Amino acid sequence: MSSEIRHLLVIGIGAGDPDHLTLAAVKALRRADVFFVLGKGSEKDSLTRLRRDILDEHVGTGCRVVEADDPWRDRSQDAFAGYADAVHDWRRRRADVCEQLIRDELAPGRCGAFLVWGDPSLYDSTIAILEDIRRREQVAFEYEVIPGISSVSALAARHRINLNRVGRSVHITPGRRLSESLPNDDGDIVVMLDAHESFRHLAGSGIWIYWGAYIGTPDEILVSGPLDEVSDRIRRVRAEARAEHGWIMDTYLLRLHPDGAEG
Amino acid sequence: MSSEIRHLLVIGIGAGDPDHLTLAAVKALRRADVFFVLGKGSEKDSLTRLRRDILDEHVGTGCRVVEADDPWRDRSQDAFAGYADAVHDWRRRRADVCEQLIRDELAPGRCGAFLVWGDPSLYDSTIAILEDIRRREQVAFEYEVIPGISSVSALAARHRINLNRVGRSVHITPGRRLSESLPNDDGDIVVMLDAHESFRHLAGSGIWIYWGAYIGTPDEILVSGPLDEVSDRIRRVRAEARAEHGWIMDTYLLRLHPDGAEG
Repeated sequence: MSSEIRHLLVIGIGAGDPDHLTLAAVKALRRADVFFVLGKGSEKDSLTRLRRDILDEHVGTGCRVVEADDPWRDRSQDAFAGYADAVHDWRRRRADVCEQLIRDELAPGRCGAFLVWGDPSLYDSTIAILEDIRRREQVAFEYEVIPGISSVSALAARHRINLNRVGRSVHITPGRRLSESLPNDDGDIVVMLDAHESFRHLAGSGIWIYWGAYIGTPDEILVSGPLDEVSDRIRRVRAEARAEHGWIMDTYLLRLHPDGAEG
Repeated sequence: MSSEIRHLLVIGIGAGDPDHLTLAAVKALRRADVFFVLGKGSEKDSLTRLRRDILDEHVGTGCRVVEADDPWRDRSQDAFAGYADAVHDWRRRRADVCEQLIRDELAPGRCGAFLVWGDPSLYDSTIAILEDIRRREQVAFEYEVIPGISSVSALAARHRINLNRVGRSVHITPGRRLSESLPNDDGDIVVMLDAHESFRHLAGSGIWIYWGAYIGTPDEILVSGPLDEVSDRIRRVRAEARAEHGWIMDTYLLRLHPDGAEG
């Protein structure tokens, strides 16, 4: 009987460097009979190509990929209180699409895979969507999660910094919540999903920034230094890169003192 | 001239599952002429064996490993204000040892590697030690950092949870600072390096815990549920495992509401 259960793999594939795939991820890719992809629109063609390259290299050019349209998401509320509601609504509609994919494109007893950028545990909705579908009880499946290198780990490695200082904490936050949690002597802050360059509001605070975009890809850009000195440069570089590529994915760490001044 | 510079690699090798090695880590292992290991004493023999297995599989049994005694660390102050000073002092003495290793065991132009459990950016001192040695200017070298799967990512993957809830933050903290940052509606807490079972002070708070030890290894233990219901079980399991293995490495996430109650 157990061989008749659908099996799903949620595979973290790293933040952009194809060599950030783990051996476990490669083995998981090779177990999958079908790969499910929700289209993100033309803005992220280079990510789609990177995912395609990963499949070609580790699975083969003949592997079965089923694409579906990603439901439209209302981003007009992203900076406001409606953010969580908008995301929950979007997730429900993504769950509708994924439930249909699993039911119609994955035979019982076979194995399907979702490829997730970075680490599935950090600011990604795939796990929540699968749990949602399981609660609906319309299609039965098992699933497992293969962790990936997040953009946070990749950022720290490229800047050769620790995320935390000795005995202290690190706070990972979306840009829209940065104002609630500034870096202080107790801990540092990593900011993800910041479309609004929230760091620009921190001038004069003595904070250092370690910023990176497209980390691990050939387009990678890294800038670090005292925020007061490099803020304008990051904003300029960011605008230029965004115009060139049509999209940007950036992450940064904020810290009161640079590493060298710590010991 | 550049070929005469010593090169060092700080390689994250994951938190215990040898398949959590990235392809970049495997390539880096194969570039190294020598591997530096600071002995941790007999308490972590199983970790030493795991590292040995990784080298045997990906580099070959003949690779050159240079071991040195890890300086003794004063842990009597770990729960008190002297913690950071004790760690800084320990790092200085580790830097002394590592500087000597690099100078005496790595010829100019060759490549040496430090293997780091988990991710070098999270609660590991190797990067800080190398920066310290560079500031002393007694031995010149370049180095790069290869990110690894942290025990935090591995914990989340094994429990199949997100570290953050929609639009919210996650706080990663050492156990000794847990009392300063409890989980709330704004974000969740991941606790590392908690030798004192700090979670036991949170009874009656309605918090859920997702706990794991030896994650990714054959000895892995996972427990999750409302803290009030599972706290005693975790403490009992933890004590038994620690007695059996002689050491324990555990991590946990604390969250106000379980995932299922979120949407």
